[in-house]
Amino acid sequence: MWPGEAHSLKVEKILFQGKSDYQNVMVFQSATYGKVLVLDGVIQLTERDECAYQEMITHLPLCSIPNPKKVLVIGGGDGGVLREVARYSSVEKIDICEIDKMVIDVSKQFFPEVAIGYEDPRVTLHVGDGVAFLKAVPAGTYDAVIVDSSDPIGPAKELFEKPFFQTVANALRPGGVVCTQAESIWLHMHIIEDIVANCREIFKGSVNYAWTTVPTYPSGVIGFMLCSTEGPAVDFKHPVNSIDESKRPLRFYNSEIHTAAFCLPSFAKKVIDAKTK
Amino acid sequence: MWPGEAHSLKVEKILFQGKSDYQNVMVFQSATYGKVLVLDGVIQLTERDECAYQEMITHLPLCSIPNPKKVLVIGGGDGGVLREVARYSSVEKIDICEIDKMVIDVSKQFFPEVAIGYEDPRVTLHVGDGVAFLKAVPAGTYDAVIVDSSDPIGPAKELFEKPFFQTVANALRPGGVVCTQAESIWLHMHIIEDIVANCREIFKGSVNYAWTTVPTYPSGVIGFMLCSTEGPAVDFKHPVNSIDESKRPLRFYNSEIHTAAFCLPSFAKKVIDAKTK
Repeated sequence: MWPGEAHSLKVEKILFQGKSDYQNVMVFQSATYGKVLVLDGVIQLTERDECAYQEMITHLPLCSIPNPKKVLVIGGGDGGVLREVARYSSVEKIDICEIDKMVIDVSKQFFPEVAIGYEDPRVTLHVGDGVAFLKAVPAGTYDAVIVDSSDPIGPAKELFEKPFFQTVANALRPGGVVCTQAESIWLHMHIIEDIVANCREIFKGSVNYAWTTVPTYPSGVIGFMLCSTEGPAVDFKHPVNSIDESKRPLRFYNSEIHTAAFCLPSFAKKVIDAKTK
Repeated sequence: MWPGEAHSLKVEKILFQGKSDYQNVMVFQSATYGKVLVLDGVIQLTERDECAYQEMITHLPLCSIPNPKKVLVIGGGDGGVLREVARYSSVEKIDICEIDKMVIDVSKQFFPEVAIGYEDPRVTLHVGDGVAFLKAVPAGTYDAVIVDSSDPIGPAKELFEKPFFQTVANALRPGGVVCTQAESIWLHMHIIEDIVANCREIFKGSVNYAWTTVPTYPSGVIGFMLCSTEGPAVDFKHPVNSIDESKRPLRFYNSEIHTAAFCLPSFAKKVIDAKTK
């Protein structure tokens, strides 16, 4: 996915190595980023910077609609997104569909501060294929769907394609929102261009691209597609909810960085605006 | 400066290796980032992402004051900041003081699109020590000083210390502005904390921290201190100038990303706000 460059973390100790039905799973203790989860050789999260990804992928969509009640997480087996969704007292039901049970087990064992998301009583875990799960969901079920996937090579490939977006749109209520991991503006503008074009066809509400900094992801940034279905208008750029920090202070997200995440460098803005207008 | 991690670019060909009076200088052709300038083993710029750094370090300060006329660049021997300063028709005089002539020569030879900044007739080059140069400047000379330095280890060490900031403040007119390279919020919060505290003591106008994404810098981000001297108030967060793109379109900067650059993740905001208030 990013030829010609590499980012390396010093390994203090390998804590786990396994091969699931879907991918290679590894956990190691790094010198300076805490414990690190690696899937098929790609860093998925580190204790030091997971806050940026988990808080942004969750609160960008959930702060953009009033009183989210039913939320679905596709992927996100580590539980970090669940942890963030659980901050909303308005939420009544949190479904998660993760394909790889080994990711869940490994997270519970090695990343208790991330997997703590599973302890919320509103969470129902479904181990299985996210696409199949979504197809079986009655139309209009969810207020928000969060797609916390790995890259579009390997088990997550389908999650970047048009039929998948259509299935997500069907599962959302009118004016419901989706947030999906959408690669790096520095490395993958061609992929992003396609994702934006696909979303523009499927989602008849609002279609936006946002980004944030995650040092251990390639090029140090990761982006998100934020879309809404036809119905009550959603202004993603201006958050309407505040977040419960009483049990666990936010480390990264705040309402200013929410708005700022939608401001794109000129080279990316040109391409994305051309596809969204 | 960043133990426990490394970012590697694939080297296609080494184009230059030399040892100046101050540092090791290297240029190589990378596989995916174009030509790369390396000083003492640290990537300074790549053709692919230099726009982010050069445009932000220049336009954050120069778009924050009306009609900048006299501008001083400390460091910045590659010429990229000059190229960006030259976009302002209001600017009458651009001084640059770079300590290492080899950096200038190498940039002119290998990075013509960066070193093009030297061709502007308003530019006067001073090869020498930035601190000594500033001390000799009559008080109140400049509207803006841009400190485009390497890290606070090696020849640039002094440029992060209080006496240097005092000298910069003296060289600025009332309500003049300085922008200085200020490390990574992910890696160097302790250094940033000190820089902010120093600036708060010296600069009696406004003191702000901004950041942007540069994939080839450690952790993928770089920050800037933006300060103004006592005098006409400067609101750094709301740019007052537009930029001439007729000869060369901006690749990164725009007025939205200017404002967004001042929005900090919560973990950084907490530390920096505590020092600036």
